[in-house]
Amino acid sequence: MSVTSADGFVAAGCHAGIKRRRFDMALVATEDREPVAAAAVFTRNKFFAPPVAASRQRLEANGGRAAAIIVNSGNANAGTGAPGLADAEAMCAAAGEALGVAGADVLVCSTGIIGTPLPMDRILAATPKLAKKLSTEGGSDAARGILTTDHRQKQALVRGSGFTLGGMAKGCGMIAPNMATMLAFLTTDADVSSEEMTRILRDASDRTFNTLNVDGATSTNDTVILLASGRRGRPDLAEFAEAVHRVCEDLTFQMARDAEGMTRIVMLRVTGAASDQEARIAAKSIAENNLVKCSWYGGDPYWGRLLAAAGSAGIAFEAERSAVSYGGIAVSRGGTNVAHDDEAVRSHMREERIEIEVALGLGSGSAQVIGIDLGPGYIKENAKTS
Amino acid sequence: MSVTSADGFVAAGCHAGIKRRRFDMALVATEDREPVAAAAVFTRNKFFAPPVAASRQRLEANGGRAAAIIVNSGNANAGTGAPGLADAEAMCAAAGEALGVAGADVLVCSTGIIGTPLPMDRILAATPKLAKKLSTEGGSDAARGILTTDHRQKQALVRGSGFTLGGMAKGCGMIAPNMATMLAFLTTDADVSSEEMTRILRDASDRTFNTLNVDGATSTNDTVILLASGRRGRPDLAEFAEAVHRVCEDLTFQMARDAEGMTRIVMLRVTGAASDQEARIAAKSIAENNLVKCSWYGGDPYWGRLLAAAGSAGIAFEAERSAVSYGGIAVSRGGTNVAHDDEAVRSHMREERIEIEVALGLGSGSAQVIGIDLGPGYIKENAKTS
Repeated sequence: MSVTSADGFVAAGCHAGIKRRRFDMALVATEDREPVAAAAVFTRNKFFAPPVAASRQRLEANGGRAAAIIVNSGNANAGTGAPGLADAEAMCAAAGEALGVAGADVLVCSTGIIGTPLPMDRILAATPKLAKKLSTEGGSDAARGILTTDHRQKQALVRGSGFTLGGMAKGCGMIAPNMATMLAFLTTDADVSSEEMTRILRDASDRTFNTLNVDGATSTNDTVILLASGRRGRPDLAEFAEAVHRVCEDLTFQMARDAEGMTRIVMLRVTGAASDQEARIAAKSIAENNLVKCSWYGGDPYWGRLLAAAGSAGIAFEAERSAVSYGGIAVSRGGTNVAHDDEAVRSHMREERIEIEVALGLGSGSAQVIGIDLGPGYIKENAKTS
Repeated sequence: MSVTSADGFVAAGCHAGIKRRRFDMALVATEDREPVAAAAVFTRNKFFAPPVAASRQRLEANGGRAAAIIVNSGNANAGTGAPGLADAEAMCAAAGEALGVAGADVLVCSTGIIGTPLPMDRILAATPKLAKKLSTEGGSDAARGILTTDHRQKQALVRGSGFTLGGMAKGCGMIAPNMATMLAFLTTDADVSSEEMTRILRDASDRTFNTLNVDGATSTNDTVILLASGRRGRPDLAEFAEAVHRVCEDLTFQMARDAEGMTRIVMLRVTGAASDQEARIAAKSIAENNLVKCSWYGGDPYWGRLLAAAGSAGIAFEAERSAVSYGGIAVSRGGTNVAHDDEAVRSHMREERIEIEVALGLGSGSAQVIGIDLGPGYIKENAKTS
């Protein structure tokens, strides 16, 4: 189950010396080095990094095709200005040269610290070696090469009727406004056009990665790329879209479970909002509230904080019409406490995955986000960056 | 320096038994029990608590006058519905009876946990005793009676030409989206109308309390009240407004310094935004970002996170025009690192009060917010509420 599970792709990972010891580069390429249909979804952050600019420009210039993706971790090549863009393009050129493909057909991603120039000597020295290691067995090495503060590799696979879709991702501690970079790379042997894949990938991202990183891709470097070798022919497009969704969902949960300092995942559903948009705003307001997140860490079913977060979110809200449940057990109705089995709620709160519904009672708008608790582990990992 | 420093006011605090041991009630009243001009600023949260509804209704009904304010801590009387409103009104009635004034001339505030009915037996039993304790020396006791997770009393005083303005407050860990309740009570012996005071108090709150709790009063119970006995006659209104601002500012800093788990205060200034409104949005986005807050705790001058927060705030942003400085030392310009004295920046970051400016280079909009770092102490205090 990896980025090389689909027919037509090879991959590799290595230690280039950007990080002290761990793998810090990855390369994914087509087996025959021919460019194939490609689609990508990039960060919406206006402080986007040079590799994002380079990859976006390449896909626009060649009509959505790519033969390879070169990735480094440990340094985001963000906040690096024009020299950073030159470095990103040099990475594409170096990978292209090592692979015998045009640099214009190579996409590039970086993740890690912001504001420090890439150690290009190490990256350029490692690239030919990385190309030599490419194999259909290299998926796991590549999945290691893209990690930063992640604790585990993240890979996923779906086998459809006549096609395979595999992928890998990095990222954790994702809930906005955290902005840890999220990268995901998917490959398939189905024959799907760049336009079709762009639409499918955008929709799947909105329903999966973006429910974790609620207000869309907010990091400087967030990128999701899907390559299609076409070797297995035309798929049923609905089945293919569902496969993309399932792989993205699987990777999303792997990221949530790996969040920095995370002890609990919360499936937070807001229903009965005046619109889906208002439901999303409320869900985001609740899931990002530090008092709420701390109460999740403490296993404390404190519904008052949820309603206070909804009430200050700037959306239509009437406490009298609201209801809150934990694990399907109603704890509040009409803005006040309702009698409930306290031990059953606390028991649900002790699970790793908590289900919470905030019903606003105003309309039919709904939204779901994946929330993560806030515990001491988060601070331990984020207090120092250097 | 207290709520009884101005001529014409008495106060008291006591332990009613809402909390286990500490003072949990406070009463402020006019010395002669006559209603005086009053002004208030309330939370904008749509999930506002019954005492907010009761106090607002009273001020509207009697044209901005009040003879007393009764306060309890330990229980916010929020999420308590119609019975909660009846309880809030019963508190006013009980205080009025004990003082010999109409219950309609008594304002009420509560702060503490949400969703649990007030222990009215204890509150009603304590109220007459509290009224008997009222004295011009009772300011400090009252300041103790309104505290919740605060570590210290917060009082302030300004003496103007011919008038005195004193006050007390509670609240900490305030930066939105925290929503710990903020209460502040100011008294003066100047002769100022309710309308004048309302305007002055709203303006002062926006420039002080609301720079801490960035998007306005977001808790269920936030309330600021100003009473004027008028005993010292008409003040210079500009001087009076400045005095109100200074007392609010003093109390704001006392709250910031007392924030749950706080180790550093950050004066974060955003300049050069397309508008003041966009500057406020950017400042809020930066000050609420957990990665940024953790970097403040760690004393790590990581400007990339500040720009990434600004870049994803939904405002006009061009990295090429931006500049970031810590303690007046430029660390980034044009979205990239600039050579600087690293030790000087790190030394500034070790201070308790850090100055950061994010210049967007786009217009003349500016805003300042008071940020607080995120450290383990915050989680320790917020993981459990019961």
